[in-house]
Amino acid sequence: MTLLVALDFASVAVFALTGALVASRAQLDLVGFIFIACLTALGGGTLRDMLINRDPVFWIGQPGYLAVASLAALVVFVAAPRLESRYRVLLWLDACALAVAVPAGVGVALGAGLGWPVVLVMGMITGCMGGLMRDVVCNEVPLVLKAGEIYVTAAFAGALAAIALTAAGQPFALLACAAVTFALRAGSVAFGWRLPVYRPRPPRDGLR
Amino acid sequence: MTLLVALDFASVAVFALTGALVASRAQLDLVGFIFIACLTALGGGTLRDMLINRDPVFWIGQPGYLAVASLAALVVFVAAPRLESRYRVLLWLDACALAVAVPAGVGVALGAGLGWPVVLVMGMITGCMGGLMRDVVCNEVPLVLKAGEIYVTAAFAGALAAIALTAAGQPFALLACAAVTFALRAGSVAFGWRLPVYRPRPPRDGLR
Amino acid sequence: MTLLVALDFASVAVFALTGALVASRAQLDLVGFIFIACLTALGGGTLRDMLINRDPVFWIGQPGYLAVASLAALVVFVAAPRLESRYRVLLWLDACALAVAVPAGVGVALGAGLGWPVVLVMGMITGCMGGLMRDVVCNEVPLVLKAGEIYVTAAFAGALAAIALTAAGQPFALLACAAVTFALRAGSVAFGWRLPVYRPRPPRDGLR
Repeated sequence: MTLLVALDFASVAVFALTGALVASRAQLDLVGFIFIACLTALGGGTLRDMLINRDPVFWIGQPGYLAVASLAALVVFVAAPRLESRYRVLLWLDACALAVAVPAGVGVALGAGLGWPVVLVMGMITGCMGGLMRDVVCNEVPLVLKAGEIYVTAAFAGALAAIALTAAGQPFALLACAAVTFALRAGSVAFGWRLPVYRPRPPRDGLR
Repeated sequence: MTLLVALDFASVAVFALTGALVASRAQLDLVGFIFIACLTALGGGTLRDMLINRDPVFWIGQPGYLAVASLAALVVFVAAPRLESRYRVLLWLDACALAVAVPAGVGVALGAGLGWPVVLVMGMITGCMGGLMRDVVCNEVPLVLKAGEIYVTAAFAGALAAIALTAAGQPFALLACAAVTFALRAGSVAFGWRLPVYRPRPPRDGLR
Repeated sequence: MTLLVALDFASVAVFALTGALVASRAQLDLVGFIFIACLTALGGGTLRDMLINRDPVFWIGQPGYLAVASLAALVVFVAAPRLESRYRVLLWLDACALAVAVPAGVGVALGAGLGWPVVLVMGMITGCMGGLMRDVVCNEVPLVLKAGEIYVTAAFAGALAAIALTAAGQPFALLACAAVTFALRAGSVAFGWRLPVYRPRPPRDGLR
């Protein structure tokens, strides 16, 4: 349980940093930074909790999450002008956040006794939805959907690893989940790892 | 009850096909196809279930829906490069999905004993929201909002037909709902049927 | 309680007007106007009610809200072509709607006995999320996020005022909330009031 809370806090903090970085790209004021940071940091977990009818939603029961996300936004508001390349930092922070949010989602869903397909989906939702909301609201091209990036796939593989290890009765399932997710996502960011993507035939009729 | 489950499965399968087609336009990998297919196929019904506090949400209680949506994504991943005009296929599949999702939403809302204005809204939400999420996330112009298309209106008319027939004690209300919805939407796609749209005066002040 | 219901109805009516105005910019038909009007008018409060597990959601328990939003859409459908500058009207109506929606959200959250950080967030969600959904769905640049506008900040300050006055045992907390929110937002619209925004260094590496 304590591990789950720590994972939730870590993912909130790091996702809030990414949200605030995107807010800096949109040139918002401090309250705008906090708004986007909270949306990003709490969005995925909130959706997870509403779907599995967890009451109360995690940050309503423990408003410390709001404080952490707001603090992260404040840090970025002060520090972002010093960054050489905000986009690069954003990519790496987002990868870290994904790698803690997926096990956080998997852990909550396992704790709620859900079947493995639902656990898988909850891991992916917790990991991917906050960043997706951030990008849709801020009019960025969603990282989740960049052609050829390993992103949802990393969340999928990590959640699958956790489910397999849990079914096999192994400990450290959530740790392995984080490691697998981070390794795949980081490989995509650093070395350009790719899955085969859909490649259309050359068009003949002018319509896509 | 069996009819409702069949409607839900059919709408999930067909909406998943449309989601995967949009994913193919965004050149995602296979997991990305599955992600967008599930978002499209399950989004509307999930919102409906969360709004009327149905517990559990339909695909959490029956993960077979996830399997159907994933299978549909796989089919499109393999088959889409063979299509002459993906956009045309997308339009027609989306019309079919709308025509099964609206009665599915109406049926669930009637079964929950809600008042007719809420039943009407639930039919429209179940029919329109999945496709709207798909288009917003994938940065397409939402089909729901294309100027002059009959889309929300088709869902509205279909849901209204079902409510009227149910109030009149007629059987086949859901079937009529599907028929009305499909007829109006198909008429718009095939023959360019239109409702009068809002037409502004020629601008005088340069601002819209 | 009566005050809360009146606030909810007023915010629904005014937000519906703004939604219909945005629909007029997208040249939708009448049902499209009603759809966007309802999304805008009911979106923020619906999210609030789902988050705090209020059952039923306000407009499901009282479908009169749907009627009000639809009527507002109809009024705009008829009247919008007569407007000189729809964007200006939209800005001012949106400011009014914000100023009634924030106290409506704060009032419900206080009534549910939530802690003050959550009350603050519920006020901001109820005020900002409906307009955000409207702008995201209709592909407008979200008003919430326009660089340098006081928007989320106005909601934040209004909610904070209400919480402080309630804690101090003062009456009229919700009225003060509306006044503070409107004053700040209107100052931004009319006089260009600004908070200091994030200002990046001149780029050196070509990446933002």
